[in-house]
Amino acid sequence: MAGEADIIQGFFAPLAAGFDGAFGLKDDAAAITPPPGCDLVVTVDAIAAGVHFFPQDDASDIGWKALAVNVSDLIAKGAAPHAYVMSLAFPDMPDNAWLLGFATGLAEAQRAFGVTLIGGDTDRRPGPLSVTITAVGFVPAGRIVRRATAMVGDHVFVSGTLGDSALGLQLRWEAAAGAPFTVSTAHRSHLIGRYLRPRPPLALVPALREFASASMDISDGLVKDLTRMVDASGVGALIDTEAFPLSDAARAVVALKLSEMATIATGGDDYQVLATVSPPNVAGFTAAAAAAGVAVTEIGRIMDGHGVTILGPDGNPVSFARAGYDHF
Amino acid sequence: MAGEADIIQGFFAPLAAGFDGAFGLKDDAAAITPPPGCDLVVTVDAIAAGVHFFPQDDASDIGWKALAVNVSDLIAKGAAPHAYVMSLAFPDMPDNAWLLGFATGLAEAQRAFGVTLIGGDTDRRPGPLSVTITAVGFVPAGRIVRRATAMVGDHVFVSGTLGDSALGLQLRWEAAAGAPFTVSTAHRSHLIGRYLRPRPPLALVPALREFASASMDISDGLVKDLTRMVDASGVGALIDTEAFPLSDAARAVVALKLSEMATIATGGDDYQVLATVSPPNVAGFTAAAAAAGVAVTEIGRIMDGHGVTILGPDGNPVSFARAGYDHF
Repeated sequence: MAGEADIIQGFFAPLAAGFDGAFGLKDDAAAITPPPGCDLVVTVDAIAAGVHFFPQDDASDIGWKALAVNVSDLIAKGAAPHAYVMSLAFPDMPDNAWLLGFATGLAEAQRAFGVTLIGGDTDRRPGPLSVTITAVGFVPAGRIVRRATAMVGDHVFVSGTLGDSALGLQLRWEAAAGAPFTVSTAHRSHLIGRYLRPRPPLALVPALREFASASMDISDGLVKDLTRMVDASGVGALIDTEAFPLSDAARAVVALKLSEMATIATGGDDYQVLATVSPPNVAGFTAAAAAAGVAVTEIGRIMDGHGVTILGPDGNPVSFARAGYDHF
Repeated sequence: MAGEADIIQGFFAPLAAGFDGAFGLKDDAAAITPPPGCDLVVTVDAIAAGVHFFPQDDASDIGWKALAVNVSDLIAKGAAPHAYVMSLAFPDMPDNAWLLGFATGLAEAQRAFGVTLIGGDTDRRPGPLSVTITAVGFVPAGRIVRRATAMVGDHVFVSGTLGDSALGLQLRWEAAAGAPFTVSTAHRSHLIGRYLRPRPPLALVPALREFASASMDISDGLVKDLTRMVDASGVGALIDTEAFPLSDAARAVVALKLSEMATIATGGDDYQVLATVSPPNVAGFTAAAAAAGVAVTEIGRIMDGHGVTILGPDGNPVSFARAGYDHF
């Protein structure tokens, strides 16, 4: 059986190529030289089989997702992704095909997001396969974009489209239950693809740094994450479901089953950015986002008060049975 | 039931107090402002119930150990520990007494090693309780102490004493098997205490930076870790078991059962420093270590060739059935 060192050198060391301080993954720690005048931004997120992905998912998708969910936090904080360390745990040694696929997905995400593997830890233990990544990025000193700094009157923006990933997950469950939605193959493929390979908007980083008053990524559902933001900021928010940016595929699902709007608002796994922008900065923010090629959509406003009020299609407030994903 | 936010704010946010960039553990990422002219050193290690500790161990010991094993890597690299993020996973929510104990152990290790919790991730999932910590420290730019840079003729040093932790683990197993060693209560308590609460030598950092040619921590057993160092450096080593620094308790065990020398040489979990020092630097290194109050002992030399040769009590080479702990 291959030992830990063989796994690391065979499958993971290539991911560290070109980063001097990774020492070819042959040392016990990595060195990062920060650019002058920058702060480091650090975030950690774990994903586990049966919780955050299906055990039978393609290994390359698992690798992609493990890294993308961490990069998502860096982007939302206005940080340029730089490097990551990875702790991998599995009950039984994955075979070489799985390891190769997993490393391929990581390599694809590294290229997409501009990050490099610099260290890690591999352990065999009971329980589901899990991947814990700590990602590091840079922001100009003191310029991390907080979640607690939204102000009354700010416009609320989201990047990309909402709910695709949650609907993709829903489709996989419904299919397993023998009652699939009757959506087209192309729409099904789009939604499931967004669940498998979230694409946080890297190009939005400069616009967030320059114009956002507060920002966070949407990982546990828009309503839950916006509630966290307004609670932390001591304000409230009013958002309008009619303004939600939806993909054609999501529109097709909602047309079939309006109640799926709840999934879109609360489902989680979007890995898009939720940002607030003060009125004088709105034009600059939208122009910078457009120049970067990132779709951003205004969905509401920050208000006096507390909590999130959601207007439904008829213009009246709606509520959902659950606000979003709870890790417990 | 308490939610994730309650756990974090109730038990972990106090550990982040006083570190501005931790934002009270209320944001999605943390900010670190590196001192000018410094590199960051980053390391990750996970510990899991049933693998790295006993599920019934005191929660404060688990907290201490989770942090100490990471700090150990920073120290061995010549880095001053600064901050850490923690990913916690458990199958069933621990009760408040456990969480309080765990946080207390972390707090004690924070004070001992000068680090602060700045972020984390908490998940409920099947499998053993596991704690994955990524720790960050600082070294003067370009001054991380590598493992691959040992040179022929260098003196081989270890800090502290060897094998206490492995013997402590052995005692726990032997006791469970109904055949305990007949060591005194004080010795038993010392050895088990070293298993539960490793104490990497923080005060040795300046001596390592100034005088060590190569360094790493001893976590998987002296023989295995020294083999890694000489393999990475393209050299060999000759060490003498007679020179091994042993605690009184370890001496008592070896006196009862000479074969326990194998446990000392290969058992793992020492979390002491293994360092090489060139002949002109030996006097400076030992003086700096003495001034810092850290015991260091020369156990051999780096030689031409490859692998680790170990001299036994009679001056002849010995070999052990296993070199050290394998994570698989």
